[in-house]
Formats: sequence, C-alpha cells, structure tokens
Amino acid sequence: MTDALSDDARKTDLQELLQNGWETHPDRDAITKTYKFRNFIDAFGFMSRAAIHAEKLNHHPEWSNVYNKVAVTLITHDVDGISPLDVKLARIMDRLRES
Amino acid sequence: MTDALSDDARKTDLQELLQNGWETHPDRDAITKTYKFRNFIDAFGFMSRAAIHAEKLNHHPEWSNVYNKVAVTLITHDVDGISPLDVKLARIMDRLRES
Repeated sequence: MTDALSDDARKTDLQELLQNGWETHPDRDAITKTYKFRNFIDAFGFMSRAAIHAEKLNHHPEWSNVYNKVAVTLITHDVDGISPLDVKLARIMDRLRES
Repeated sequence: MTDALSDDARKTDLQELLQNGWETHPDRDAITKTYKFRNFIDAFGFMSRAAIHAEKLNHHPEWSNVYNKVAVTLITHDVDGISPLDVKLARIMDRLRES
C-alpha cells in the first residue's frame, strides 16, 4: 500500500514536476503531460521503454497515443490521488524523453 | 491517398467487424473496440505487435491503455472517415488478439 503524497512533497516534488511540463488534472488528483515526438516510431519507442519501467514499479500509467503524441495521466488508484509512485514514474518518463 | 470505404464494403467488411466486437464511433465516422487482457504485460505486448503492423501499413491507431485494457479508435484522417486501411488494421488487431 502506498501513501498519498505528503503536503511537504506536494510543495517540492510535485512543484518540480509542474515546472517541467506536468499539469494537475482538472477533475482528479492526478498529473498529466503530453509528450510530442518526431514520429510514431519515436513515440511508441518511448512508450515501450516506459512500459517496462512501469511494470517493474508495478505502477502503470493511463496513457493514449495518436501518431507522434503520447498523453499520460498518473494517479495512484489505491489512494485515489497522487502518491510518491507517480512522482517516480513521472521522473522516469521525463528522463526517457530526454535520452 | 486512400479512398473512403465504399458503400458495398460497408455492407460486407464493416458489418463483419461490427459482428466481431467493433462499434461505430458515436460522433465520428470511425470504429472503436476495447480489448481486455490478463494483465499489463499482455496488453502492452498486444500494443507492441500492433504498433509494428501499423507502422508497416503507415496507418496508425488512436489508442489508449489503462493496465489490462486497450481502447482503439480507427479512422483515416485523409478521408475523415473509415477507409479500407481501417478494415485492414482492425483485422490484424483481431488476429493478434487471438494469437
């Protein structure tokens, strides 16, 4: 069981993500980001790498893909909101995006 | 450039898909289907195989994934509606689902 993101972490970790292109979801305590790539191969390549990390974390994104775009929503269903696992997966995805 | 699906093909090919779990989109001339798998690995494995076929066809799905579910929408943007390419990709996905 994961705990919800602490108030302190919301002021630090979450803020860091929000400064890096993540947004809070309009209707849920979740974060979202849309990554744009050169083409489908790059977009799906990103998803493939992120998928393996997600499975290793046992924490999976809600995501959609249309050609070169990947829209991600991260939320922890156990706490019905953002948890440290979402911060972790968000950082991994941002790192994959850059590599 | 692809042509839109002919009236004849709508009565045959499209009907066949609709009998196989595909539905017409409520707002667009598109088809949708949600595949459910045992777990994330199976769901993303399906997406990975379908992605390579899509790239080979140069015809890509709009799709989303939440854990063991993959929701697919097929439409051909060039014709703003269903084309034979959508039928082809739908059949490939159904075949991958079974294998």
